[in-house]
This record gives sequence, C-alpha cells and structure tokens, in this order.
Amino acid sequence: MLRLGPLVVTGRLLPVGPAGGRVSLSRSRSWLSRPTGPVGDRGLFYRQVRAAAGSAGGGSRCLALKTPKGTRDHPPAHVALRDRLLAAVVACFKRHGAAAIDTPVLELRETLTGKYGEGARLIYELQDQGGELLALRYDLTVPFARYLAMNKITNMKRYHVAKVYRRDNPATTRGRYREFYQCDFDIAGQFDPMIPDAECLKIVHEILSDLQLGDFLIKVNDRRILNGVFAVCNIPESKFITTCSTVDKLDKMPWEEVRREMVGEKGLSPEAADRIGEYVQLHGGLDLIERLLQDPKLSQNKLAKEGLGDMKLLFEYLTLFGIAGKISFDLSLARGLDYYTGVIFEAVLLQQENDHVEEPVSVGSVAGGGRYDGLVGMFDPKGRKVPCVGVSIGIERIFSILEQRVKAEMLYKKDPKLLKQLQYCEDMGIPFAAIVGEQELTDGVVKLRDVAMRQEVDIPREKLVDEIRRRLEP
Amino acid sequence: MLRLGPLVVTGRLLPVGPAGGRVSLSRSRSWLSRPTGPVGDRGLFYRQVRAAAGSAGGGSRCLALKTPKGTRDHPPAHVALRDRLLAAVVACFKRHGAAAIDTPVLELRETLTGKYGEGARLIYELQDQGGELLALRYDLTVPFARYLAMNKITNMKRYHVAKVYRRDNPATTRGRYREFYQCDFDIAGQFDPMIPDAECLKIVHEILSDLQLGDFLIKVNDRRILNGVFAVCNIPESKFITTCSTVDKLDKMPWEEVRREMVGEKGLSPEAADRIGEYVQLHGGLDLIERLLQDPKLSQNKLAKEGLGDMKLLFEYLTLFGIAGKISFDLSLARGLDYYTGVIFEAVLLQQENDHVEEPVSVGSVAGGGRYDGLVGMFDPKGRKVPCVGVSIGIERIFSILEQRVKAEMLYKKDPKLLKQLQYCEDMGIPFAAIVGEQELTDGVVKLRDVAMRQEVDIPREKLVDEIRRRLEP
Repeated sequence: MLRLGPLVVTGRLLPVGPAGGRVSLSRSRSWLSRPTGPVGDRGLFYRQVRAAAGSAGGGSRCLALKTPKGTRDHPPAHVALRDRLLAAVVACFKRHGAAAIDTPVLELRETLTGKYGEGARLIYELQDQGGELLALRYDLTVPFARYLAMNKITNMKRYHVAKVYRRDNPATTRGRYREFYQCDFDIAGQFDPMIPDAECLKIVHEILSDLQLGDFLIKVNDRRILNGVFAVCNIPESKFITTCSTVDKLDKMPWEEVRREMVGEKGLSPEAADRIGEYVQLHGGLDLIERLLQDPKLSQNKLAKEGLGDMKLLFEYLTLFGIAGKISFDLSLARGLDYYTGVIFEAVLLQQENDHVEEPVSVGSVAGGGRYDGLVGMFDPKGRKVPCVGVSIGIERIFSILEQRVKAEMLYKKDPKLLKQLQYCEDMGIPFAAIVGEQELTDGVVKLRDVAMRQEVDIPREKLVDEIRRRLEP
Repeated sequence: MLRLGPLVVTGRLLPVGPAGGRVSLSRSRSWLSRPTGPVGDRGLFYRQVRAAAGSAGGGSRCLALKTPKGTRDHPPAHVALRDRLLAAVVACFKRHGAAAIDTPVLELRETLTGKYGEGARLIYELQDQGGELLALRYDLTVPFARYLAMNKITNMKRYHVAKVYRRDNPATTRGRYREFYQCDFDIAGQFDPMIPDAECLKIVHEILSDLQLGDFLIKVNDRRILNGVFAVCNIPESKFITTCSTVDKLDKMPWEEVRREMVGEKGLSPEAADRIGEYVQLHGGLDLIERLLQDPKLSQNKLAKEGLGDMKLLFEYLTLFGIAGKISFDLSLARGLDYYTGVIFEAVLLQQENDHVEEPVSVGSVAGGGRYDGLVGMFDPKGRKVPCVGVSIGIERIFSILEQRVKAEMLYKKDPKLLKQLQYCEDMGIPFAAIVGEQELTDGVVKLRDVAMRQEVDIPREKLVDEIRRRLEP
C-alpha cells in the first residue's frame, strides 16, 4: 500500500520559474522507490511541487539582504504574467488610437511641487548631491502635463506604461506597493464636451471585461458637483480641497467617522457636515442626476449645474456605448489629487461572498482618473490651458488578484494522513483538494474534492487545471 | 511654372509623432494653391515635413520646464523605434533560453556599496526621509547578484531589460545619458569552463549582426591575465584595481597619457608603467595567446597562466561558433567595474570613413560584460559563491546610431533657389537630395541626387526610402 499526500489547490500562484505563470505539479523522480507503508485505504505517493529556478522564497537571513520596504522582486513567472496583463491593457490603448511616450523616472522637484495636495508628503526626494533638486515621479499625469507644455502640444492621445513611486504605507497583500506600475491613457485637447471623458470610461470597461476579473462597478462624479455641494452647504471655498479628501474616505469609513474628521480635523460646523452628508451619500443613475438638477439649492449653483448637465450628457454617451449598466453616479467619490477639475471616476471590483477563502483579496480601486483642465497651464509660461482627461489602470492590484487565482500548497509531512490533510483544508478555507492514488493513476484521473461540500469527482488529468479554474471563477 | 524646394535627406530621424519611427514626407494640403512664380526650369512646389503631435522640439522658455540633466523624454516615434530594438534583443535572449526577472529601481544603499569601485561616486542617493537609506540602481548586475543570494538560487539564465541611473557627465549626442536602458543577459551556475562565457559572446555577435549596425569588433581580455601582467611588472597587489581603471582608458587616450596617469596619479614607478605598456598594447588572436603562454615571465604567473589557458579554450569555442573573426584578444581592455574576476569583453562599432557625414556618431562601446564569480558571495550570509557571467547591451547607444540613420531636413525659405539648396547640401556634407518637380510628379518618380558626385537618377516614389536606406548603408 502506498500513501497519498493530497495536492491542495486553493488559488495562490506558485512562485514557479521560467516556465512562467503555470502551476507546475510534477511527480518527484524518486516517488516510485518510496512506498511508505500500510496506512489508509489506497496507495499513496509523495508528490512534489516543482519549484523551478527563479522561485521566490528565500527570505532575509542577513539583514541587508532585502529589497527596500514596499518594493519587491519579480521572478520570471511574475514577469510573464505581468507582461501578459500589460499587453492586454496596451492593446486596448492602441485600439483607441493612443501612441506611447516615455518620460524620466526622475523629475525636477519643482515639477512635482504643488500638484498633489496631501499626497506631496509621499514623494521620494533625491539627496542633494550638487546640481538640480530631483524627485521620483509620483504618477504619470504630472509628467505628461509637463511634457505637453514643454513641447507646446495642444492635442494628443497618448499612453504611458511605467513605474511610479510613493512613500505610502505599503499593504503588499492588497497589491499596494511603494514602487508600482501605472498604465495611463490620456486625451489632451479641446473637443466636444464629454466625448473624451466617455471614451476613458469605455476603456476602463473594456479592460476590466477583457481581463475577466469578475463583476465591477465604475463610480463617477464631478469635482464641479462636489464644489457646488460644498458651496450650498456654506463651506468656505478655502476648505473645498481638504473637504474633498475627507469625503473620498467614504468608501473605507462609515459616514459617522467621515463626519467626525470633517468637524474635528477639518473644522467644519456640525450643521455643514450634516448637510454635506445628505448629498454625498447619494448614488444612482440618470434619475439621480435629474433629481439633483431639480434640487432647489444645487440648481442655483452655477458649477453644480454645469457638472450635472455634463454628467447627464456623459450618461447619454455611456448608454450609447452600452456600458451605463456598470456606471454609478456616486456623490461620495472625490479622488485624492488636487489637479482634477471636472469628471472623476474610479473602478472597483465587486467582491464575491465566499466564506471559504481565508484571506479575501481586498484591492480597493483598480482604475481611476478624471479631467484635469488646469494642469498643463501650470507649466506653460503664459498659463495657456490644454484640457485633458485620462485614466490610470492599477495593474499591480489586478496582478494581486490574478496571483491569488491559482495557488496551490501541500503539507510538508513525510507521512501525511489523508484525514488530517482534509481537516487542514477545512481549517484554512482551502476550497479544493486534488487526490491521486493508485486507482486514479491507473485511470489517468485526479479525484477533485470540494472541501466544503465534502463531494469528490474524478477529473481526467489533462482537464484538471481547466476544471479548477472554472470552479474558482467568481 | 512652379518652384520646387528640394527635400534633403541626410540620415537624421525626424521627430515624428504617433506614426512611429517613420520619416513622414507629405505634401502640404495647400500646395496646389501655392504656385510661386517663374523661376528655374521646372515646376516647383512647397513641400512640408509633417511634424505630428508628439514631436520634440519646444525647448524651455520657463526655467523649470525641463527634464533633469542627462535625461530626456521619448516621443512616440522614439518609443516605437526603441520598442523594436528591445524586441530584437529580447528575442535573442529568449532564443538562448533566458527568463525575465524584474527588480526595484530602488535598492538599499548598502546593497550597492563596495561593488563598483570608482563608479560609486556616480550613484544617485535618495534623501533620508526616515526609514531605510536608499539609492537608485547603478546597473542590473548587482541587483541580480542580490536576487540570487536572497533567493538562494545557484543556477539561472535570466535577462533583464530596465533603466539604470548614473550621475555621469552626460554626452547626449553620443547616447550617454544619466537614465538609460540596459539589456542584460546573465548565466549563473557552475558549468564547464568557458562555455557560458562563449555563449555571451555569441549573443553579442548575434544581436549586433541582427541590428545591422555595420562592422563591429568584440574585444576580449581576462582580469586574471591583467593581474598576472601587473604582478610580473612588480605592481603591488593593492594597486591592481586602480591600475585596471587607468589601463581601461587606452581606448580613449594615447599610451603616453595613460602612462602619465599611472605614474602621476596612481603612483606607479616609471619602469613598472613601461613594463605594463609593453603588454597592454598587444592585441591579436590565438597566435598572441600562444605567444604569451610562452612568455618567460607571464608563464610563471599562476593567474595569468589560468587566464591564458581559458582564453585559448574560449577562442576554440568561438571558432566552433564561427564568430572568432570578430573577436580580438586585447590586453588593453580592463573594464571599469570592480566585480569582474575572469573574462571581460566589450563590443565596439567600427566607424566607416565618410567625409560627407558632418557629425560622425562616436558612441564608444555598444555592449560589454564579463565574469563575476565573487559578487553573489558578497551577499550570501555564509559567503557561498555562485559563478556568473553576463553581458549588457547598450541599447541607448545603438538607438543614437539608428536615430542618425535616416534624418531629413529642408530649407525654411519660402522661395528656395535650387542651386542654393544644393550648395547647402554640399556645405553641410548632406549626401543626398530628393527633388520633386512637375515632371517627376507626372512620372511618379523622385530625382535622387548624389550631392558629392553631382549625379542624379529617377527613383520610383514607392522605392525612394529603400533606395536611400540602401545607399546609406555602411
């Protein structure tokens, strides 16, 4: 009798080597010579998950042997997966007529100064080694605006895929790093209202659909509407931007906490905060836009009226594009960056309820963007404005999700009891166990066990990966 | 009668836009309506070189409106050309079985410290903003060694294409920037002598041949031979590395100057310098290796003997690969970096004599590399060594050359006399003028004039670009 160490498949990408992105489950060469005694009711084999050269792991025995906080190396399998992701994103950008540019990772500090609001404290600065004062780029939008102004370009559709740097508090399990890729698509130039803005949303919709990340929602708002709301709630104009950044936390905090920050930290009156609360908790579609256009206070505010009119027009285009179903006009969306002037948006994945997955991947937004009509003018010596709208795809967060999709592990015991292993699966919320014994080997199948349901079914070996993927799909 | 402004084609890439890397010579829409009077013996048209959105130029009216010193933006045409170059290089790396990894642009300062010798002063350091002390990577080799040690990998063939940073004195016309791409291919692991080393040289040969950059030469030497030379010339061992970096300047300075630096700055005795001079000015092939193996002094030095023995073996492999004809054993080659321990090499393009090209592109070496058997051990807590050899392709310098290949300009005069334009061509060393008049339009041809020979020939329009490229080939 041989003993079987069941293969436990959960959804984590193994750090495999050059083969690239594949969960590679091969039998140890020595398995035939290692029968391990009479336990259990079927023959069992040791199995080995091949960790090819290039696999991560290791760790830092020596203090210095690490990458900087919030950064990571990418072994070949990561690079292969990331390249496939980037290729899909770039293909979409090109389909929409954009051309690639590249700008330096380094910018003059003064190029970045005064563009990001509260984010500015997260900018990496370079040591003054004589010469210019430099910093690492914080995003690709400000360098693009600098590029447009410097080259006097008033009309351009460009994409840029590159790394940006933020001294943020890293949350690497959620795909938040200090060095990360951004994939930006932007349209610069004067066009009929809302058409470029609608194209940006179409692009987000296409990419998130293409990548099959499950259900998603694109929240849309407009800085002019927010400003209008603040104005009719009697917030002094000097507090608009800082109030924006508090409102933006509504997706992570309950209203009560946001209200507390408004009153406590930002110094709004409780009454003003309550009035804001009535607006910023609203979300909906065309109906909500129509309602707000009739709102006795908002309809009297010029900016809000403009924003709502454009929002209505935007929804008409989105309906024509057939994507309005995934778009939500959401007054709580504010976006953190100072430079937005009009439409803003953010795409979030809708998490499936799944109690069996031990660490649900909460990645927050996977795309965001908006209109920034004033940024180029900040760089132009004569202040000439170039209206711009753009979107940034958070490829790193998407990567974290895909990384969790097919991960596998096994118990590192030389004599693993089957029941013990299945118990481990149940404890850890591992959804499937793949079991291979003598009978399965003879039949060329793998027994796939649904751990929660305690149901087993034989799957032909060559169909195993597809079957697991199918079952793991949201 | 119409007047013709001849199109002058020389070999400089126009800064065209999204169309990408193409010299785009289109007629102005208004040309039909702009006959300009009776001059010359054929009809002439104004012509316009279309500078699409995204073209460089601009300049910095405002002081802040620039990229940091030694860096540059890449408009769409550049990115397109660069991507084609990178694709060719990566295809070769993959053909040779390498897998891609990626590492952060940022490294701990201590990771970079003590690896580069004199180059260390060119490392960009980040400001201490609380937390770890960081720096920008100086090359891709040290991060690779850190990666191997950290992940306990003892065997890997990897490539890495990414930007590196050096606070060097930029010489942008020669393709020397402070931010530039490196394309690295490295083999880590214990193998039979000289086989991985030979593969690296084969890769350089393949890539430089594929890219059709004209004739090239790969210089090869070995740090052990150099050390043996220094030893038999009675240089103290403590001065080996610093003497290396002086010897390395022999490709840019005459021997007299190098000797002066050795004696003056490095403190060698004049006699020792002279003895070194007798060796380091030698170059050749197998014959030279055989001669040095018989050299009464060198043959008594263990390191030199090892190095010469391996060099002989290397040349045997290179002969089997059919590439020995492009390889020169050159004792003046030293390479600047500290970490090399064995074979070192560097590829240079052989400039064609061409009096007609006004600004010859002198790009120096376009590839380099060598064996660094001790670097991984510097990171391993127990000092375990992983022998490595690798090559870095200087894509930025190659880009500069290709950039100069097809450049075109025209005289910005509204009423350009043909003779004056041809005179301009002769003055500027522009090799070809493309002339389009009424007759040529009717015939669907372009008159291509060899400026120096004063010969003209009609070329069908659709074959013009190919014909110019053919004539410009070295």
